[in-house]
Amino acid sequence: MAEVEIGIGKTARRAFRLDDLAIVPSRRTRDPEDVDISCNIDAYRFEVPVLGAPSDSVTSPATAIELGRLGAAGVLHLEGLWTRYEFPEKMFEEIAELPAAKATRRLQEIYAEPVKPELIGTRIAQIKEAGVTTAVAVTPHRTLELADHVLRAEPDLLVVQAAIVSAEHVARTVEPLNLKEFIRHYELPVLVGGCTSYQAALHLMRTGAAGVLVGAGTGAAAMTREVLGLGVPLATALADARAARMRHLDETGVYCHVIADGGVTTGGDIALAVACGADAVMIGTPLAAAREAPGRGWHWNMPAVHASLPRGERVRVEPQGTLEQILHGPAHDAQGTVNLTGALRRSMALCGFETLKDLQKAELVTVGDR
Amino acid sequence: MAEVEIGIGKTARRAFRLDDLAIVPSRRTRDPEDVDISCNIDAYRFEVPVLGAPSDSVTSPATAIELGRLGAAGVLHLEGLWTRYEFPEKMFEEIAELPAAKATRRLQEIYAEPVKPELIGTRIAQIKEAGVTTAVAVTPHRTLELADHVLRAEPDLLVVQAAIVSAEHVARTVEPLNLKEFIRHYELPVLVGGCTSYQAALHLMRTGAAGVLVGAGTGAAAMTREVLGLGVPLATALADARAARMRHLDETGVYCHVIADGGVTTGGDIALAVACGADAVMIGTPLAAAREAPGRGWHWNMPAVHASLPRGERVRVEPQGTLEQILHGPAHDAQGTVNLTGALRRSMALCGFETLKDLQKAELVTVGDR
Amino acid sequence: MAEVEIGIGKTARRAFRLDDLAIVPSRRTRDPEDVDISCNIDAYRFEVPVLGAPSDSVTSPATAIELGRLGAAGVLHLEGLWTRYEFPEKMFEEIAELPAAKATRRLQEIYAEPVKPELIGTRIAQIKEAGVTTAVAVTPHRTLELADHVLRAEPDLLVVQAAIVSAEHVARTVEPLNLKEFIRHYELPVLVGGCTSYQAALHLMRTGAAGVLVGAGTGAAAMTREVLGLGVPLATALADARAARMRHLDETGVYCHVIADGGVTTGGDIALAVACGADAVMIGTPLAAAREAPGRGWHWNMPAVHASLPRGERVRVEPQGTLEQILHGPAHDAQGTVNLTGALRRSMALCGFETLKDLQKAELVTVGDR
Amino acid sequence: MAEVEIGIGKTARRAFRLDDLAIVPSRRTRDPEDVDISCNIDAYRFEVPVLGAPSDSVTSPATAIELGRLGAAGVLHLEGLWTRYEFPEKMFEEIAELPAAKATRRLQEIYAEPVKPELIGTRIAQIKEAGVTTAVAVTPHRTLELADHVLRAEPDLLVVQAAIVSAEHVARTVEPLNLKEFIRHYELPVLVGGCTSYQAALHLMRTGAAGVLVGAGTGAAAMTREVLGLGVPLATALADARAARMRHLDETGVYCHVIADGGVTTGGDIALAVACGADAVMIGTPLAAAREAPGRGWHWNMPAVHASLPRGERVRVEPQGTLEQILHGPAHDAQGTVNLTGALRRSMALCGFETLKDLQKAELVTVGDR
Repeated sequence: MAEVEIGIGKTARRAFRLDDLAIVPSRRTRDPEDVDISCNIDAYRFEVPVLGAPSDSVTSPATAIELGRLGAAGVLHLEGLWTRYEFPEKMFEEIAELPAAKATRRLQEIYAEPVKPELIGTRIAQIKEAGVTTAVAVTPHRTLELADHVLRAEPDLLVVQAAIVSAEHVARTVEPLNLKEFIRHYELPVLVGGCTSYQAALHLMRTGAAGVLVGAGTGAAAMTREVLGLGVPLATALADARAARMRHLDETGVYCHVIADGGVTTGGDIALAVACGADAVMIGTPLAAAREAPGRGWHWNMPAVHASLPRGERVRVEPQGTLEQILHGPAHDAQGTVNLTGALRRSMALCGFETLKDLQKAELVTVGDR
Repeated sequence: MAEVEIGIGKTARRAFRLDDLAIVPSRRTRDPEDVDISCNIDAYRFEVPVLGAPSDSVTSPATAIELGRLGAAGVLHLEGLWTRYEFPEKMFEEIAELPAAKATRRLQEIYAEPVKPELIGTRIAQIKEAGVTTAVAVTPHRTLELADHVLRAEPDLLVVQAAIVSAEHVARTVEPLNLKEFIRHYELPVLVGGCTSYQAALHLMRTGAAGVLVGAGTGAAAMTREVLGLGVPLATALADARAARMRHLDETGVYCHVIADGGVTTGGDIALAVACGADAVMIGTPLAAAREAPGRGWHWNMPAVHASLPRGERVRVEPQGTLEQILHGPAHDAQGTVNLTGALRRSMALCGFETLKDLQKAELVTVGDR
Repeated sequence: MAEVEIGIGKTARRAFRLDDLAIVPSRRTRDPEDVDISCNIDAYRFEVPVLGAPSDSVTSPATAIELGRLGAAGVLHLEGLWTRYEFPEKMFEEIAELPAAKATRRLQEIYAEPVKPELIGTRIAQIKEAGVTTAVAVTPHRTLELADHVLRAEPDLLVVQAAIVSAEHVARTVEPLNLKEFIRHYELPVLVGGCTSYQAALHLMRTGAAGVLVGAGTGAAAMTREVLGLGVPLATALADARAARMRHLDETGVYCHVIADGGVTTGGDIALAVACGADAVMIGTPLAAAREAPGRGWHWNMPAVHASLPRGERVRVEPQGTLEQILHGPAHDAQGTVNLTGALRRSMALCGFETLKDLQKAELVTVGDR
Repeated sequence: MAEVEIGIGKTARRAFRLDDLAIVPSRRTRDPEDVDISCNIDAYRFEVPVLGAPSDSVTSPATAIELGRLGAAGVLHLEGLWTRYEFPEKMFEEIAELPAAKATRRLQEIYAEPVKPELIGTRIAQIKEAGVTTAVAVTPHRTLELADHVLRAEPDLLVVQAAIVSAEHVARTVEPLNLKEFIRHYELPVLVGGCTSYQAALHLMRTGAAGVLVGAGTGAAAMTREVLGLGVPLATALADARAARMRHLDETGVYCHVIADGGVTTGGDIALAVACGADAVMIGTPLAAAREAPGRGWHWNMPAVHASLPRGERVRVEPQGTLEQILHGPAHDAQGTVNLTGALRRSMALCGFETLKDLQKAELVTVGDR
């Protein structure tokens, strides 16, 4: 490992962000049309290896349906506005109008409204009716409490998500979630994370999860590193999770999916995340920029609404087009945030890769001077 | 050691700042409520491992009392406005009103007023009366001159502080302070610093100091590096001091505390400082942002008022809430400068550490490309 | 190779940009007048080792002629406005007037107009008549389609250019261009690229190309790295291509020219590109700043007009003087973008090099901290 | 040497700037009053190890005298305004009034006026009369032409300066300056440079020069790196020159002085330059900020006035006080550009060094992440 001594007897490991890297084109090229960007998670096939983040500004029942229709999937957070309010539209309207200085405080109040378990079924049913893959998210510390409501509604995929989730949560006062038992007990495929290290990823894989989310809140609206001082830059976290996936596969014969979560905003980022080891990506900011996005030009994550320690902000996102355009183009500027699949295809084509598994074997360089 | 050749036959050691690093979450997580962030220095227990800097803009008798009440401690500088003026309030008012261009020059004049030894007892008594741990600071070159006045007033902790303090001050014209004799002679526990290297820290520890301050004036209001070209980035200085602490403990059986001093502004910074080796932190800027702070929206350190070579400036700090809020929350934004203990607890919880001693064993990564 | 581990079992190679580097002066100096900056590509001699990029904002028939007269050459793109429109001047006028927000979209429309094969001959003839070296460009996927029209017009040099061109293009639906056969079949010397790695460069050299373009769209108007996540910083790509050139020379006895393409904007950049291994450079932005430049103060590359995934933008370039001044001076500011040959000569003179081949042996340092 | 591979078979050496580094305080401290910052060059003693740069905006006969009085020395350029014009004041006035867009062009015109050899004696006499060490500069390519005029006037020190000066200038058309013969022939001590490598410095030392200037035009007003792509960052260039000085001393018994030239602006920079190996520094920008400075709030170097390839600009410098204040204080802000000797003394005192030779042995760290 690339350890560097930071002081006498104390080392740190060198870690890399996606934007520290670039993919080296191989000596072949291809036609973008011949490239296959699909991936399978458990029984579900995604034509587009993209999950919409469980942020209220990104995934509503409506955008979950549209994302499904477009070959991806949106993950609805079951502790967000759609389960706290029967008619959340007003809240979205108000949030969009909040002046910057009061935004976080008012978000804290709006999210102080309790989750209504009975709305869980309603929201899941809405998505299921449309016939798309239905994915929903809960936080680990409320998973047991909400599990029955969730499972009764029979979503296709359950995401258990927080900035950091471990397979061994220690708690003195409350019985903690035992992920292994939980996953074994129910039939539902579970994606779990974030996690940022080989050991943490490996132990999450051993719980029987269908996939692990890798990252620790590093998107545009997240400030985990700044506020908490923790986290591993995404490229390194993905490469480590890829190593854990190989060991887990060797030990169990089971291929556990690695999903990059945090800071992926362009098709180039998706390609880089895959080249580092990801099977798919979870994205927020680019989808919050859709015309249909519930955030109405704003994006915020769940940690931004924490009652006493917000670790993120409501951030402005410039509308870029419809969800379809953002995923499939055409783009009319060169920011790379529209036509994500077109960019992923072209990146793979120019580099000579046919499938995402091929792209995972790409050579990388550091960019700039590193 | 991580030496790099900068030219033929000349090397430099690679050094790291706190913000070059992040903590790697372990494979466990905890509940924030189960985390213990207390520390003991000599006979004194601090529920919060935070010392308020001996800057007039941070610690007055009143804020020292409030910090004590909140589980921390404020260090009153005995060569500041509170001992130069019987009624310093006017000076604080004037300083807050100074136009930028004239601020340093007028600060130099205001601090040209001599220290009144008789006010030393008065100020210490004020804090002691409140029943909180009473900590005061002097500079090394005035320690002998002011010692009797200080000791007579019986503070709990004495801080001997300058940008760089050594155990071997050489002077031709004046008898220099012999720290070892001084500390042995009096019973008072002494914290001394700044220092920035293994050798310097080790020799300060050998004077019998209860703790050493590590850093060399690197906070927001300090410009030691720019003006003097010296200093070691904090993460490396802390890791080296930790190594000196281990050797000193091995040689003497005495655990000498390492206190990070300079540039710590968020709960994440506190967590990182501890992960690098600190037992506690001394902070200025975040506390200068308290509603009660004597600086009234401004922060300056003692080197900023030097008569001929100021190494710092009066800087603006946006008020963030009460001292209680800054230490214990709740926060209503994601800057990380409010709810420092909440952030420290959550950082430790997400990373799986129960005590500050556990956190000192955390793995670290460089962030970005390093 | 300078590999760095980015995660367990995953490495990246450290790569360098031109501006990460500086040339180390040798222990000799020379007079700038004694320096020879000419280069030969195939049968053609260039007094100035500069090709004008095949961008409509840079090379028109008129500027190709002027560049030839000045000792360089302009490469006219045969899929640009000059072959799509019989009278393209109106289009240039309109493009120069477009508001920023609509520029890309309108460029996409303007370039949706089909190429008129019959205009190819007209444009080539215009340049040939002036008696200068006539160089034209096509993209690889239209090379076969346009080849007859091009060859009939008998240009001196053909450039087959895209962001990434490989010697082994794989396509399921269309018969791909076989560069080796194509080059063998016709007598025309061909320059081909971009490419960014040793293997890719070597295989392009083996097609019989007279030269390879090294780079992957990294100029001011290009965003390949951002949008697609791929590419190798130029200094490293050039050094690798230089290694491929040496092997190819050893294997075949043929010296294949390496032409830096992307991000070269000053005489210092040209010197650095040569010091890294280039024989010549292709430049866009600096020539788009000429008073005669067809872009009228704007610069855009072909990828910026792609119908569904633009990877570049129309960017503003401040007019700097005539083409003659830009190449040969005098300069009246210190930006380094005027008097490119004067700067190249002086750089070589101060460093003690007499020819470009000497300069290729220069020692380099990283600049700043790297 | 710290070589890094930039591509297959091509390396670059890692080089460092002064601001990549900081001095590590030793385990001793001292009183600033006990620190000795003097240095001797040939027979001349400088209480302050500072030479005023041979820029018209810095050194006039009057400021040369004042710098001498203050313990330093100013170097008057004999190809500047004072020898081109009998009454240059008007020119200075005009230059100070020039609008930015026309500054370089008009400077080129003003400096097109020929040097009047007869003014050389007048200017030197003016300085000599004041009884201070008289130092003057010429460029290498006019040294032979102007030598007799210069030597007849008997200055104390001659500086032969250009961006890069070598001991082996090759020229086809003109007889080049043979420095070795020149220096041997005359008795005058000569300082020569810039140079940036071990070999170049060593060969300049072997010419018999009393000192070499190390650097290649890296100050605030210089753009050598940007325009020409050449140069070695100062810390590395100084460390290499220090190694050359050691070898030269071993071979000849002669100690050749190393003078840092370029980018030194604060007392901290001076301390760092010495710690890297310098015996003294040549500075421009900080002295151009003096109330007495001839530049009247502007600073420019000789390369900025080059007729066809300016490599620098007229830059604004905010007036900071008298020359005496800039060198000896007091300072009334914390920028570090006033009270240079106070900062140098304090830096040495806090780090425990008594003389500049001691400071040359200081330990260094990289700052930030390097």
